[in-house]
Amino acid sequence: MLACTGYAAQSADSKLAPHSFERRDPGPTDVQIDIRYCGVCHSDIHTARSEWGPAHYPVIPGHEIVGTVAAVGKDVSGFAVGDVVGVGCMVDSCQSCEACAKGLEQYCENGFTGTYDAPDKNLPGKFTFGGYSKAIVVDQKFVLRVPKNLELAAVAPLLCAGITTYSPLRHWNVGPGKTVGIVGLGGLGHMALKLAHAMGADVTLFTTSVGKADDARRLGANHVVISKDEEQMKSQARRFDFILDCVSAPHDINAYLALLKLDGTLVQVGVPAEPLPVKVFSLLFPRRHFSGSLIGGIAETQEMLDFCGKHGIVSDIEMIDIRQINEAYDRVVSADVKYRFVIDMDTLQAAA
Amino acid sequence: MLACTGYAAQSADSKLAPHSFERRDPGPTDVQIDIRYCGVCHSDIHTARSEWGPAHYPVIPGHEIVGTVAAVGKDVSGFAVGDVVGVGCMVDSCQSCEACAKGLEQYCENGFTGTYDAPDKNLPGKFTFGGYSKAIVVDQKFVLRVPKNLELAAVAPLLCAGITTYSPLRHWNVGPGKTVGIVGLGGLGHMALKLAHAMGADVTLFTTSVGKADDARRLGANHVVISKDEEQMKSQARRFDFILDCVSAPHDINAYLALLKLDGTLVQVGVPAEPLPVKVFSLLFPRRHFSGSLIGGIAETQEMLDFCGKHGIVSDIEMIDIRQINEAYDRVVSADVKYRFVIDMDTLQAAA
Repeated sequence: MLACTGYAAQSADSKLAPHSFERRDPGPTDVQIDIRYCGVCHSDIHTARSEWGPAHYPVIPGHEIVGTVAAVGKDVSGFAVGDVVGVGCMVDSCQSCEACAKGLEQYCENGFTGTYDAPDKNLPGKFTFGGYSKAIVVDQKFVLRVPKNLELAAVAPLLCAGITTYSPLRHWNVGPGKTVGIVGLGGLGHMALKLAHAMGADVTLFTTSVGKADDARRLGANHVVISKDEEQMKSQARRFDFILDCVSAPHDINAYLALLKLDGTLVQVGVPAEPLPVKVFSLLFPRRHFSGSLIGGIAETQEMLDFCGKHGIVSDIEMIDIRQINEAYDRVVSADVKYRFVIDMDTLQAAA
Repeated sequence: MLACTGYAAQSADSKLAPHSFERRDPGPTDVQIDIRYCGVCHSDIHTARSEWGPAHYPVIPGHEIVGTVAAVGKDVSGFAVGDVVGVGCMVDSCQSCEACAKGLEQYCENGFTGTYDAPDKNLPGKFTFGGYSKAIVVDQKFVLRVPKNLELAAVAPLLCAGITTYSPLRHWNVGPGKTVGIVGLGGLGHMALKLAHAMGADVTLFTTSVGKADDARRLGANHVVISKDEEQMKSQARRFDFILDCVSAPHDINAYLALLKLDGTLVQVGVPAEPLPVKVFSLLFPRRHFSGSLIGGIAETQEMLDFCGKHGIVSDIEMIDIRQINEAYDRVVSADVKYRFVIDMDTLQAAA
């Protein structure tokens, strides 16, 4: 086994603190990665605090991982020591169901293995540990290549926030000639603006905050609508081919469904804790579609990274020392970050 | 003007009773129809009782109309006196928007003209009168041809219940190799069973009533699931390509979303008065779609009638005398009809 250090929550209400643990030695198809940066996703907090059901402690969060290959198993092809790579929200899946066969591992019928707090197939009885740690060992199928031209720290959030927004934008064919709405300007929303803009769509940001308008335009919005303003909202009726809703707080989904054209689709990627009440009339006059989307498959995640490399897209980040992680969590909860915290994992050595 | 008689509600809480009124004389593109049968749709009741907002009295309901052409305007082509024809939920639309251009008049951006209680473009200031009447005058664009081999009275409900279920089944490509669920066995559900079966799909009916199982199989269901039985419901998880939900009472939509495969769609055609709470997790693991659908366009309604002619499909009906209409309304409200009342409009002469 591989001795490792990281930052873990020991219970739902304890702060994250240094923690020593072991990872498996790399098997024939495994890639061992020295982690250099790890993004901070709101899911990390939900899991560490058992807000999505009881977690299995200690929890080491982190699924926006970039680093350098430190070792490869004998059957690994395509990765070599020194390569710059990424790991996202998944480290395994059944590889045998219909979804996996389609390269949609995120919808694996037998459940994909999450990067943290998921039953670890390689260490029965144990749970996976995420990227707030010195190193990680991952099957090559779940390792991504990072384009060389991008600022590495700012690539980390692409592995979750980036693919979560890229996948629905691509699946619903967002591009030139399409009118696209993005609801909410946070970690997901700011990536959605950059990506939809790069895809060539006419992009409108919906926000409750007048103060976010300038930033939205800088990030790629052609138009900004203040969603609290009923007149502004009314003027957008039946205008959109596609709306990506990045808001995880409760909000009136019918107000956005009303903005879709005939056969337009609203995709929810923000996940409010409570169900969203949908008026059936919102869906039938005219015919409209309300869908969900979860991260993206591995092949699509690579496609997203290559797209970002081509267009020079990374996340807007605020870099932190691992010792600031608990303070950063509080700021994520109060939406006080533009737009993603990324941990400099070099700081772990001094901390642990 | 054309003197006419019918059955009207004079207020939200008055019973329907004989009423004399006038229709326009047929213009150059109009078809004048002697009504022989008219189906009774739950919408008739909602409108007559102002349950969908204040109606404009007197209200003469009825939008499942079949009859015989009595006269045609000079520019009418394709219809001649004596032809057997139908009229559904629409008698006009703007004919200039994108939806109308696509033959989707039901989604007309300027609002289609409903067959009853809609502002009448031909008689400014007046509202349209429906099919509980001796005759109707309709622009030829909104007149349908009825296949000669079908029992005419039982064709009437095809004009609303038939097209409401046919349109989504066709739009989402229901056919051989597709697993299709139909939720609820009433006026809509019984048509959905017949149509989905004729399209060649593997059809499952979901019902709360054990007593409806035999009838469901007779109507075309390959399988019947009792939706109150949690074990039965669990066994259907991720099994369906498409589900058509015909229930207009409050119900747990998440229980049905969970039965869809990856990229499966649930279409709601029943319209509950209250919003349906949708859990976002139901839509994103795996990716699923929740949509609405409203009747069908005129071209698609003709296609549906031709399909029914080819497959010998009509509605299961219970024929009534117009003088029984108020009693029939009470029975529709308590879901006590198999599966659609149709008024024999010959009885109007004795009643009025």
